[in-house]
Amino acid sequence: MSRILIQHTDALTLDEQNRVLKNVNIAIDGRTIVAMGDAPRDFVADEIIDGRNHVALPAFFNAHTHAPMSLQRGWAEDLPFDRWLNERIWVAESALTEEDVYWGAALAACEMIRHGIVAFADHYFWMNQVARVVEESGMKASLAWCVFGIGADKEVGGASLEHTEEFVRQWHNAGDGRIKTTLGPHSPYICPPEFLRRAANDAAKLGVGIHLHVAESQEQVERSLREHGKTPVAHLASLGVFDVPTIAAHCLYVSDDDLTILADKRVTVAHCPKTYLKLAMGNARVPAMLARGVNVALGTDGAASNNSLDVLESARIATLWQKNEHCDPELMPSMQMLKLATQNGAHALGFDESGVLRVGARADIILFNFDKPHLLPRHDLAANIVHSAHASDVDYVIADGRVLLRKGELTTLDEEKILREAERRAFRLVGSEMWQVRAYND
Amino acid sequence: MSRILIQHTDALTLDEQNRVLKNVNIAIDGRTIVAMGDAPRDFVADEIIDGRNHVALPAFFNAHTHAPMSLQRGWAEDLPFDRWLNERIWVAESALTEEDVYWGAALAACEMIRHGIVAFADHYFWMNQVARVVEESGMKASLAWCVFGIGADKEVGGASLEHTEEFVRQWHNAGDGRIKTTLGPHSPYICPPEFLRRAANDAAKLGVGIHLHVAESQEQVERSLREHGKTPVAHLASLGVFDVPTIAAHCLYVSDDDLTILADKRVTVAHCPKTYLKLAMGNARVPAMLARGVNVALGTDGAASNNSLDVLESARIATLWQKNEHCDPELMPSMQMLKLATQNGAHALGFDESGVLRVGARADIILFNFDKPHLLPRHDLAANIVHSAHASDVDYVIADGRVLLRKGELTTLDEEKILREAERRAFRLVGSEMWQVRAYND
Repeated sequence: MSRILIQHTDALTLDEQNRVLKNVNIAIDGRTIVAMGDAPRDFVADEIIDGRNHVALPAFFNAHTHAPMSLQRGWAEDLPFDRWLNERIWVAESALTEEDVYWGAALAACEMIRHGIVAFADHYFWMNQVARVVEESGMKASLAWCVFGIGADKEVGGASLEHTEEFVRQWHNAGDGRIKTTLGPHSPYICPPEFLRRAANDAAKLGVGIHLHVAESQEQVERSLREHGKTPVAHLASLGVFDVPTIAAHCLYVSDDDLTILADKRVTVAHCPKTYLKLAMGNARVPAMLARGVNVALGTDGAASNNSLDVLESARIATLWQKNEHCDPELMPSMQMLKLATQNGAHALGFDESGVLRVGARADIILFNFDKPHLLPRHDLAANIVHSAHASDVDYVIADGRVLLRKGELTTLDEEKILREAERRAFRLVGSEMWQVRAYND
Repeated sequence: MSRILIQHTDALTLDEQNRVLKNVNIAIDGRTIVAMGDAPRDFVADEIIDGRNHVALPAFFNAHTHAPMSLQRGWAEDLPFDRWLNERIWVAESALTEEDVYWGAALAACEMIRHGIVAFADHYFWMNQVARVVEESGMKASLAWCVFGIGADKEVGGASLEHTEEFVRQWHNAGDGRIKTTLGPHSPYICPPEFLRRAANDAAKLGVGIHLHVAESQEQVERSLREHGKTPVAHLASLGVFDVPTIAAHCLYVSDDDLTILADKRVTVAHCPKTYLKLAMGNARVPAMLARGVNVALGTDGAASNNSLDVLESARIATLWQKNEHCDPELMPSMQMLKLATQNGAHALGFDESGVLRVGARADIILFNFDKPHLLPRHDLAANIVHSAHASDVDYVIADGRVLLRKGELTTLDEEKILREAERRAFRLVGSEMWQVRAYND
């Protein structure tokens, strides 16, 4: 554990007063911020970071993704959802190996660190491989091994609920607490009710939460009403799912009563607007959710639908879309969007000590390099980040007091090797001949 | 004039066959592409660019902006349009000087080159200063000096139509043809009909086009119907405005008959979707425009509303928004969006020899550095650019055969000086005390 001193940086604290600090020092000892403003006189730093022309803020949290699907980025373009899924995603996933999952997650980790993301809530298969990547990269995560609950022969990789519970026992709080786990029943439209009830009971016994997909289409809602007499949200509540901490991805089609349940049960809604636009799924009721106190966090979904793992882009698209949809340019201002991208995600993943810059908080910090024409003038630092910055303008990433990106260089991962190996496996996954055809004739 | 050889690059030609070339060389002699594939044996290059792990494509054209408004980036956030304009933009512009315009445009030029943009259609005041920036930077432009036509005392900087015509005579085709000019009556909702008719006649005599704002709100359409008995588009057509090449920015509220006029008269619609979302203005009928053969190009509007000068982002937002709005994920695929961002803009600005990579075409070329985790795997190069790249992933920009950005470094502009001077002037423009208050309490 080292001591880091960031000098002369501007800072968006994202505290209750939304304080913006000019030209301050931030002292980090081990995993904790120990001073902001002036550093203690006796503070001897192992590393000094020059924060001039930078803006520090809490690191981003990605509240919903499928990291290994980075192998399928650009592989299912401009298609309706059913063809996207049946002709592309499932075809490629049928060839997926456990080792592919490792390399896909490693590619995703490189991208996420470079985009200022220190933690992600992942939902996929062979999550032991994703856990390895988290351990090696220095990132943090909440990992859900996806199960369908419709028969062991239909599970990807043959994983049963019991198998994923073994994963939870093995990995929960591993990596010095950087790794959290949850159970990952896919969704109420695939998983049978009894399976969901059992998953909820088991999660409670294991002391972990649940991460699943909810209400992605009006058709799902109508089927739920027909089959269970309840909306997906009410159905899940009645099965006890929301009695453990839950990340409910999407929640695009929810009623006012659903919103009350989500707020009362302290469910996190993971909002992934770029995917919704790209697949023409419609928008979520984010302003109504926020008005009722639902914890809305931002996700990127997988790169096969979202094309990038960029929480800052999710924040930008989320506020732009809602402003226009509600004919209200004042909706969801920049400072609020940064809180959704940081502290709301940190809460969702179970890292409540993160998401704010203040003494005593966890040292999950990113620095944007503002010495660039598209980030000047500095009239409004929050607006310049939400509406003008590229996530790749982040040149320092600190997670749990450890530098994962230094002057734009990854410190923990062998990026060159990961890029080559991940692409090689991606081409094999989809059949390189198909790739040639697609690349030349698109 | 020098000879440049780009070696071993992948290339999106954006030609009629949408050819994607793997591992080719591109030879440039003077302002022209002289070979693609293998370079001629006797070609001796002054500069060799290593294109490995890069993707070359025609450079971006920004079809509508107000470059000097970069000084007001982040200065009018989360406000409805009337307050955005009256409480912020016009307050700051009332303090604007001619020198401010130069530095604001210079800041914009730094940003645009870094974002892969070689040319922009600008609409603002003191355009002689913007022309200086174009001349010095090596960029290309179509420059419109904005006039309201409502009395000389109400014109910013006191410029009359005659004054702007003098600007046209002085600057049209200057800078080796890199600078084009047009007349810039603001819009049919501000300019009186007789003024617009005179501008159209004068533009025809001068051999230049017109660049103006059209149909930004339903209220404008209703007022036009009330006052002129015609929609804004039909009104402009009846005044002869569309008898010269016209860039009609926005055209958000247009009828089917309007679309027919826009197509028949070969008007370019400059589409700026990020601004429309941010100010909650509604979407344009881009698929209908394209179906009728309207030349739709992409713009960024000014940074005061759009917050960045990033045509790639305009392309991304344009397609995502239309896909969802029309419940059709197949709409406006990536290759088409790249054509809107390049050749449609080149046509709009009067640079028809640009916008495609082929022998004989103008050497306006950008290279994206794909050696990055968010741009791999290379299943679909066009999709990776439109949906995954940051515009700042461009590390080479070539305009008229001249390298303006080399390995991420600007070659023609003193960026450090421009960043400092532009920000200093921006703070003065809005009152630095106000800035302090805003920055600390936002």
